[in-house]
Amino acid sequence: MSLFCYNNNGDNMINSLTNEKIKKYAKLNEAKYRKETGLFLVEGPNLVEEAKMANVLLEVLTTDEKIEGTLVSEDVMKKLSQTITPVKVMGVCKKVDKTNISSKVLLLDDISDPTNMGTILRSAKSFGFDTVFATNNSVDFYNDKVIRGSQGAIFKLNLLKGDIISFINELKNTHHIYGTNVRDGIDVSKVYEKSNIALIMGNEKRGVSEECQKLADSNIYIKLNDMESLNVSVAASILMYELNK
Amino acid sequence: MSLFCYNNNGDNMINSLTNEKIKKYAKLNEAKYRKETGLFLVEGPNLVEEAKMANVLLEVLTTDEKIEGTLVSEDVMKKLSQTITPVKVMGVCKKVDKTNISSKVLLLDDISDPTNMGTILRSAKSFGFDTVFATNNSVDFYNDKVIRGSQGAIFKLNLLKGDIISFINELKNTHHIYGTNVRDGIDVSKVYEKSNIALIMGNEKRGVSEECQKLADSNIYIKLNDMESLNVSVAASILMYELNK
Repeated sequence: MSLFCYNNNGDNMINSLTNEKIKKYAKLNEAKYRKETGLFLVEGPNLVEEAKMANVLLEVLTTDEKIEGTLVSEDVMKKLSQTITPVKVMGVCKKVDKTNISSKVLLLDDISDPTNMGTILRSAKSFGFDTVFATNNSVDFYNDKVIRGSQGAIFKLNLLKGDIISFINELKNTHHIYGTNVRDGIDVSKVYEKSNIALIMGNEKRGVSEECQKLADSNIYIKLNDMESLNVSVAASILMYELNK
Repeated sequence: MSLFCYNNNGDNMINSLTNEKIKKYAKLNEAKYRKETGLFLVEGPNLVEEAKMANVLLEVLTTDEKIEGTLVSEDVMKKLSQTITPVKVMGVCKKVDKTNISSKVLLLDDISDPTNMGTILRSAKSFGFDTVFATNNSVDFYNDKVIRGSQGAIFKLNLLKGDIISFINELKNTHHIYGTNVRDGIDVSKVYEKSNIALIMGNEKRGVSEECQKLADSNIYIKLNDMESLNVSVAASILMYELNK
């Protein structure tokens, strides 16, 4: 299958909003359809480039004749894009199923905000937590805001979804499980067990569920002055930073 | 001046959207008017409670007769509120000018995103950076999203705005100035100078301006695996966490 049209010209431009392919791609803005097809969209040259390097880029859509790819009209691009400022290039990508569980694993128990999720994925890759597992109730990894916030980390991580309780029970054979809690536990700066570990982070409002918390081998926390808690993406990042030292 | 009406009854309810006081308070949703009057609004019982404890609460507005305060109609509340889910209580607060510069100072060079600003203020208070200075081009400290994200930290911090170059030049007499940069400098985990310090964080896209960077006594950075940079609120939080150890 050829992924690129190397010689664009106006004649081949897709300008119909009811074109079958465009209708199919537009549906990829819904998590349900991304799940069904295993495809997702990325916007802008940087993310398209990262997708290409990660070998997950299936097709490039562009309004610019100078860029290699399928030429589309600005109206078609507007239909597909989630950003306010119009982009000139989008990529259609396939999700990659990876299987190796890394030495450091991050477990996300119902993270609901896409900005938090994107930031957490960016930090996970930055601090060597190469496998990230999220509950089905968490926001989709391939949501456009998550992709943008992750700054390309989604292409480099082993991203898994499913039943967190079964996953933790399996992981307990090989990994030390750290629960998190604002009050109880060990100050993370005093933790020495830093390989073959999994860190559980909880929902923005409720924290880690009791059921997950019970499966933790120990609890860690971050020492704070005069505040009750941190933003969850900040807390996750500081804990991963310390556990990667 | 009495701040509360202790005996609410329907007769005293403000239900006109053109009531002079309500018109004045509605304008507080603009930064310009907050600057002119030195007043700002907070939404929800938690923030109103924090404002009261911080001694900056001038008036409580509520749609609930059981709550002490000025009774207003739901339409009036909707006009004043910035949230989608209607709140039952709002507070009118006065900004407090504090003067003591703390031992740890955070300097913000054009932070533009209100979510980042709120998260940064929450972390600043958590890690003992009790004075936060921002350029005039930074998002307003009293923006409703910043207030919500700060989780009450705005009431506990010494918040300053103005010309950052003059402020750094003054601060250099008493504080060691740390610039930040993704590449150069000292790994923050190896830094020993942790009191009487100021940390400069830069704009989401451009980073710290060259002019500010030149005034730094040294540069610090966070070691990352396989990613170019972190979200600015995460980077600020990790640096402040380390510098508070």
